[in-house]
Order: sequence, then structure tokens, then C-alpha cells
Amino acid sequence: MKIIVVGSVAAGTSAAAKAKRNTEDVQITIYDKDSDISYSGCGIPYYVGTDIEKREELTPRNASWFKKRYDFDIYTRHEVLSIDAKKKEALVKNLNTQEEFIDSYDKLVIATGASPIVPPIDGINKKNVFSVRNVESADYIRKYILENKPKKAVVVGGGFIGLEMVENLSNRGIEVTLIDRENQIMPSMDKDVTINVEKYLKEKNISLLFKEKVINFIGEEKINTVVTDSGKEIEADLVIMAVGVKPNVNLAKRAGITLGETGAIKVNEKMQTNIEDIYAAGDCVESLSLITKQPIYHPLGSTANKMGRIVGDQITGGSLTFRGILGTGIFKVFDLAIAQTGLSEKEAVRLGYDIEIIHNIKPNQPTYYPGSSEMVIKAIADRKNGKILGAQIVGKKGVDKRIDVFVTAITFGAKAEDLFHLDLAYAPPFSTTKDPVMYTGMALDNAISKNRKLITPKELIKRLENREDIVIIDARAKKQYDEAHVDGAISIPLGELREKAKELDFNKPIVTYCNKGVTGNAAQNVLLNMGFKEVYNLSGGHKNYKVFMNI
Amino acid sequence: MKIIVVGSVAAGTSAAAKAKRNTEDVQITIYDKDSDISYSGCGIPYYVGTDIEKREELTPRNASWFKKRYDFDIYTRHEVLSIDAKKKEALVKNLNTQEEFIDSYDKLVIATGASPIVPPIDGINKKNVFSVRNVESADYIRKYILENKPKKAVVVGGGFIGLEMVENLSNRGIEVTLIDRENQIMPSMDKDVTINVEKYLKEKNISLLFKEKVINFIGEEKINTVVTDSGKEIEADLVIMAVGVKPNVNLAKRAGITLGETGAIKVNEKMQTNIEDIYAAGDCVESLSLITKQPIYHPLGSTANKMGRIVGDQITGGSLTFRGILGTGIFKVFDLAIAQTGLSEKEAVRLGYDIEIIHNIKPNQPTYYPGSSEMVIKAIADRKNGKILGAQIVGKKGVDKRIDVFVTAITFGAKAEDLFHLDLAYAPPFSTTKDPVMYTGMALDNAISKNRKLITPKELIKRLENREDIVIIDARAKKQYDEAHVDGAISIPLGELREKAKELDFNKPIVTYCNKGVTGNAAQNVLLNMGFKEVYNLSGGHKNYKVFMNI
Repeated sequence: MKIIVVGSVAAGTSAAAKAKRNTEDVQITIYDKDSDISYSGCGIPYYVGTDIEKREELTPRNASWFKKRYDFDIYTRHEVLSIDAKKKEALVKNLNTQEEFIDSYDKLVIATGASPIVPPIDGINKKNVFSVRNVESADYIRKYILENKPKKAVVVGGGFIGLEMVENLSNRGIEVTLIDRENQIMPSMDKDVTINVEKYLKEKNISLLFKEKVINFIGEEKINTVVTDSGKEIEADLVIMAVGVKPNVNLAKRAGITLGETGAIKVNEKMQTNIEDIYAAGDCVESLSLITKQPIYHPLGSTANKMGRIVGDQITGGSLTFRGILGTGIFKVFDLAIAQTGLSEKEAVRLGYDIEIIHNIKPNQPTYYPGSSEMVIKAIADRKNGKILGAQIVGKKGVDKRIDVFVTAITFGAKAEDLFHLDLAYAPPFSTTKDPVMYTGMALDNAISKNRKLITPKELIKRLENREDIVIIDARAKKQYDEAHVDGAISIPLGELREKAKELDFNKPIVTYCNKGVTGNAAQNVLLNMGFKEVYNLSGGHKNYKVFMNI
Repeated sequence: MKIIVVGSVAAGTSAAAKAKRNTEDVQITIYDKDSDISYSGCGIPYYVGTDIEKREELTPRNASWFKKRYDFDIYTRHEVLSIDAKKKEALVKNLNTQEEFIDSYDKLVIATGASPIVPPIDGINKKNVFSVRNVESADYIRKYILENKPKKAVVVGGGFIGLEMVENLSNRGIEVTLIDRENQIMPSMDKDVTINVEKYLKEKNISLLFKEKVINFIGEEKINTVVTDSGKEIEADLVIMAVGVKPNVNLAKRAGITLGETGAIKVNEKMQTNIEDIYAAGDCVESLSLITKQPIYHPLGSTANKMGRIVGDQITGGSLTFRGILGTGIFKVFDLAIAQTGLSEKEAVRLGYDIEIIHNIKPNQPTYYPGSSEMVIKAIADRKNGKILGAQIVGKKGVDKRIDVFVTAITFGAKAEDLFHLDLAYAPPFSTTKDPVMYTGMALDNAISKNRKLITPKELIKRLENREDIVIIDARAKKQYDEAHVDGAISIPLGELREKAKELDFNKPIVTYCNKGVTGNAAQNVLLNMGFKEVYNLSGGHKNYKVFMNI
């Protein structure tokens, strides 16, 4: 059987390798129009920065490595121009010799990846405006930095690539301004989570410009000023464009392959396109959300790898299928880790879910153990059935662990109540006796099924703006209340609450809070147990409120 | 309703707090014969060492904190001498005044914890022989170290408390010898896993004495020599006994409460003992294995906390039940993390499971990313249904994350094939594109359902000793083979295998291997795809073989 694979980064090489692992009875040829193969796209920002010194570390495998191990042929700088699905032929152009030739296949795999979006802005093609596409583009950025020693950089786009570039440019001593059209970084996350990161970035001397669209780059050979739609002018010796990627679907489109509603190639669970014997995998393909069962476009190296392996199995008669993704993501910016899986609040609301929300602020390990560090977990659950729908986490330590536990739990349909029962690994260097994930599940379960309702700062402020008469009780010590408190709150320290609650109006809604939520919950319990009917605990307490109000 | 709780460390205070969170309509009294309450037992080794300087960090809460928050009363140095279940009364002795009195209850909770086993060895009561029981015992050890500046210590017992003490004594500059009756540390783990830790401990200048039983301590006021049954004499200025703990069940026994087969108190899923209105929780209680559904005794702070919360809910009319545990454990010794969940190989074999075994050696993050570090994952799955039965992990980074993903997956009944599909969080600082957990699942699934069989070094050696005629192929480069190889192996580098395999005997079993397993698997695939029938990949490759053979 003859197999042609178009593209040799993550998905393409995975597909070919898996096919060859399954059977010797295949002859595989891979074409890629670029020079580099099987590189780690996600490592590129660290090669631009100072963490990875050698290019070879990102491109450890060459064509001869694959030939030796898997006995398949990779032709780089070979572009597949078109596919004739009836004849089962591909027209290929050797970009070195400009020669064109036809190759035939029994099965063809499209793994053409994605490309950075390059918006039509004047000056975007100037020599110091870069996108992060592949190792070659990283070479250019790196070379430019080393030769020109830029002092000021603008990164356009606050997605994870943009933020990783912010860190790596900053690590090279460059003053960085980040510009985004939205009012936040990471558009897939909720603002009340990203605000923690934004606060941190400011502490790291990163300038943030939100709700600004870049409309012009000024400069001759090189640009020196970035102009936004509000008229701001920002000096820059270097610009990184990181406003997102789009799937490379031109070849597929020309071959008559159907695209999905996200604009990426539509495939079934076997990774088959609508055309017989043509499969697709990787960043050019749309995924399926495990939660909503709807198509989503979420290009990522790990998913590309997975899809590639599935294609390789399918084209050799295997039964592996693609089950869908949660849209998990993680990235690091300086010392901070930011992770997400499943649905955000805004996404869940848009999709019509009735959700419960918790902001859970917990240390990664007991505070008595050296190096303990706090994380914020925002998690949401479906009020209808208690199922966990998503989690977003920001913190310096142990964030990756907690998101992966959420990923695993959500994959198996975990309800909030299930998290408490997990027999997670406990020892002081690694976790608290009840892991933050367990607390998150407990609080959500209590809110959904035990009437221990939570209210987010956003919801509280909205209800106050609607002139609702809500009693807000600060359950902390009086001294803490005096230092700072929620607008309109009264001070009743928990120890006095049993006595003083008798004076409160049983008919008014009450919101309790403390620093992070635990004492607020205790106060809520006291009031509910005394017979108060509508009592909320402020999600994440005063700490979360403060961050949200940007105080 | 009147509730008496006996014991105020993890389970007792959890039970009382949860009861009070559920309802104001309870009057709770806790008695504890010790002075300290609600302390972190697991933090004690770090208080003996240099990581935790202040005693208060381990005992952050006192009786008045609980009174203020939960309005319940804790009496320390009050021993409950007996329970009259008919009259629903407890006889209590104030250890300060020696006064005895009777208190009555509607519900009683036994949370008497566990105590270190003190074997009847001559000299064990001498002043420099210590057990690690509570904060007070840690005070004694600490004081002894600071005042006497011991140079040599012996730790008896290689469980996690013993090993944590080894680290912490060593961190104080003390030369440590660890003695264990078994041929390994951590008896709940498999020797082919613990051997990685043992090797590391030797590098850290810890002397290990296995298969030795301490039979005598020599010395006057203080002991100075530890004598073992083989006649070894080890000098010691300080001895830590850490040979295990036993549940404190005397009070329960006297009250007519049934003990389980493990010797700990038997309870149902509501944490009820056989006597009406008497519940039990924590280290004095036996657990249920989620996997085997059999009772196990696995005392741990996290489980005690969980059980306490469940009791608190049950005694106030709640519906929370105890689902069982996986026997998860984790600990750190110097820079190394060692974790375990579910069944070990020896346990699974003892229970009659037909298992597949993988030793998966993987970096926690891409090797190109700074600080990458390797871990060994040994995982086992049930050949009958593909379900993951257990995992053991040793490594410096990311061990806690992987064990918790296994915990979560096993809890939900994950099969080996499910692990590959997890949408775990990927970015170079946190993981490889395919996480080690995913690889583990892939290899086990391939072995179980795709005929990509694995063989452990132990099994291979056993078969060779039985004079089986097995062809062993070293698929690495010839140079690596020349440096060191598996006994009896021939060298056929992967690139030459397709050609040279033709000369091999199709009827003989073949074992392939490389350094860690990936190329060995590739070689195995080639041979199986060429028509060879019985081909195994050596689990963990030459690296695992070397460690196992103690080379």
C-alpha cells in the first residue's frame, strides 16, 4: 500500500510512524514545503529567549533518522500543489529545482498545519515585524535580536504564544508592551481569572494595552512606532505578531474537501475527510469538544500528535478513533503557570448551561512547608447534574498537576461530589491533606446540593447595581475589616455571629465573606443553620474581590 | 443532640467541624489524652529536620480557635477510659487532676488514631531510642539532637516515615544507617521500583542494611550500638524506630466494638461500628480497597480527614459515605519523589490477577527544556479487561502529578487504552507532547490487545534460568552494545534489523530491547510485522535491566 503524507511536523510524522509500527506492508512518502521536520513548535519561544541555546534541540530528528527507524521517505522543500482524488494522485513541486512531478497513493494524509494570521496592517511586512510560525521564523527573530539589540518590543496578541514571547523577550532585557484588542489576555479564559495574570505582568514591568487595535506601523526599512486605533503611539524596535493562527486548508479546499464551521478541515472520528482515502490530522483539522460534542478549533501539538497516531492506525486497518478534546491548555509566563480545561464561565453561559462557580484560593502544599505558594482555581459545574464543566488555574506551583486531575476527572464525567473522594497523593512537600481539587469539588457540591450557595464578585456587584437590598457580612477580625472591606459590608467577626445574627433581617439576602472563603463559608453555615434562607458565600472572599475590583 | 468525639487530631476535629457546619443543633465535646490537637502528623519529620523551625507551624490551631469558629469544646489531657454503650456514657479521666467523671452522648465518635509499634527489644526504652508518634515525641528528638549533637544515627524501618527521618537526620549532618527486615525499603512497593531509590540513597551516603532484624541495643543510660540478628554491630548515638504503626483500638475493644481482619476497627460505608450510635474514623479504622473491595489498613492523614468529614455528615443526618481508597502514598527523600497507587505487582499476583507490566522511563518535560528530569513509572494492568490496577513512580520532578492522574483515572475505572486519549495539559515547561502517563497507557494497551508483549527483566531472567532458548536482540547502535548489554544478547541495530531478521529462527521467542524501550518497541514491531510470532520488548530497556541487576 502506498501512502502520501502532506506535512512533516507533529501530525504527519506521527501518522507515518504509527502506520509503520502497525505494518511493514506500507510504502510511505512525506512531503513538506518547509525545510525543518518534526520540530517542537511549542519550544520556539524558548529558543527566541535564553532557555534553549541550540537550534538542534528543537529539531532533533532529520529525514535519515526516520528512514532508519521507520523506513519511510521525507522530502522537504517539496510542496504538494494539488490532489486528484479520482486518479489518486498528487502533483508535487520540488521547491529547490522548481521541477513538478506526479506521485500516486492508496491513502493520503493531509497534515498541513496552521499559519499565523497576518492582518492587513500597513508596514506589517517591514523587516522587524515578525510572526512565530516555525523554527526558521524563530531563527530570524533570534538573529535580529542578537544583531540589533532592540530595547523596546511590542507583542500584538495576548494568547499563549504572545505571552510566552513576552517572557522570552523580557528575559533578554527588552522592555515589552503587550497589545490586545480584547479587555484581557487569553480570550478563551474568564477576565476574573486573567486579571491575576495581568496584575502579575505589571509587577514584571510589562506594559499592557487592552482594547487597542494596531492599525499602522511607522518607519522606513524598519518600523519604529506602533499606532493603535485609539491614536496611541508606542515606540518599538521589534514587533511580534501573535494574533492567532488559521488552519492551512487551501490544498484541501482545492481537492474538494469539506471544511467545518470553524474553517478547519472537517473529519469524522476516524479522521476521514469527506473524500474517500483522504485523511487529515493536526492543526489544519477541527476537533470535537468532549463536553458539548460541538466542533471546536483548538490547534495544539499534543492534539496533533494524537490525531496523527489515530490516522496512522486507521490507514493500516486499526480501530483507534478520536474521542474529542476538552480544550486543555497551559502555559508559563515568568514564574506563573496558567492553565485551563473544559468550559470557561462565559462559554458555558453562552451555551446556555446553568452553572455554579467557585474561586478557590489555596496553597499548593501546607503553609508550614517551605516554598508553599497560593493558586487560584476557578471551576464551574452544571447545576443540573453536578458535573464539572471546566477549570481555570493560576499559580506558581502545582498548577499543572491540578489541571491534569481536572482533565482526567472531567473526561470520565466526574461530578463535583466525586472530587472529595479521590485518594490523591498526600505528603507535605506535594499537597495539603485535602488537595485544592478536592476543596473545589466540595464547595461546588455544597453549593449545588446543600444550599451553600456561592456568589461571584461580578454577580454581587451586578445585584447591588440593580439596587437589591443585600446584607454583606465581613466575618473576619475587625482589624482586617478596618484595613479594607467589600463596599457596603458590615463587620461581624465569626466568633460573634451566633449572637449578633439574631438582630439581622431574616428576609433579606445575605452575603458572607472572609479572606479567601473558608471562614465566609463557616459564617454562611451558621446563618443557614439558624434559619436564614438566602445566604451566599462570596466566591474567593475578599482576596478575589480585591483582584476583581483591581484594588 | 450531644456528641462526644474521642481524639482531636485529623479525623476527630474533621468530624466535629463537619457536624457543626451541617447544623447548629449539636453540642460537641472532644477529649484527647495528649496535649496537642489538630496537628499535622505528616509534617513532623521536617520539624525534626531543618525545614520547619517553629513548633507552632505544626500546631496552628488550639482549643479556643475551634471554640470560636465551631463552638465546640476540646479537652486535652483527658482520657476516655471506657464507654458504656447501653447507657450511652463515657468514663473520662482528667490526666492533670486524676479526677474521673462521666459524660453522656447521643452519638460517639472514636478517632483514637494509631501508635508506633515498639518491638520488645532489649534497650528500646533507653533515652536515645525514639519513635515518631506526635509533636511531643518530635520535641524530644529535636531537643536531643540540639543538645547532644549525635554523629551517627540508625533508623529502623524503611517505610515512608523512616525514609523521611533518614533525610531529615542527614540534613542535620548526621551519618545515617537504615535497617530493614525486608530486602527493600517500602514493603508495599515492588523491589524493581524501590531499587531505584536504594541506589539513590547510597549515592547520598546513606548506609542500607537489608534482611537484618534488630535484636539488641547496647549501652548504659544511652545506647551506643545496635545489634542485628546476623551479628552486625552498628554504632549509633541516636536511634529512630519506624517499623510501622498499629491502630489504637483498646477503648473500642473494651466497648465491645468489632475489629476487622486487619486488626483495626471495622466500620461500614457510613463509618458506623457494630454498636449503634458509635462511629469511628481515622488511623484506628480499617479502609476498603476501591480495587479489590477488600479491607486494607492504610493509615494516612488525608484518609483520616476524609473519614472524619464523612462521620460528621452522617451523625447530623447527611448522606456522605466512604467509597474506599486506592492505597495512594507519596513521599520525598532528598530530591527524589516516590509515589504509589493501587496494586503493586506482588500484591496483584498474590490476589490472582493476570497482569501486564510496564517500566516506562520518561522525562517529565522535553529534554530540550532546561531542567528536564527522568522518572520511572511502573504500571500494571489487568489483562482480562485492560483496566489499570496500579502505578509506582520514582523521579525528581512531576511524580506527584502523574500519580494523581493515575489515581483519578483508576478511580473512574480507566482502561489502559483510555490514557492515550486524555487531553492532558501540554507545554514544554510542564510535559512532553505525549505525557508519560499517556505513553504508559499506550504501551500497556499495545501489550494487552495488540500483541506487543512486554517482558520484565525479572521474568526474562527467570525464563533464561529455566534454560529456555530465547533470542535477545540489542537494537541499539553497536557502540552502545559494546559498552554494556543484556547477558546473552546479540547486536542488531534497528536500521539493520529488516535485513538481518531473515536469518533468525521464526520459531524461537525473541526479546528486543534498547535503552529505555522505544526503539526496542520499534524493533518488536518490525519483527512482528515480518511474521515472527513471539516477540517481547524488554520493559524499561537496558536502563531498567541495569538497575534491576544492580550493575
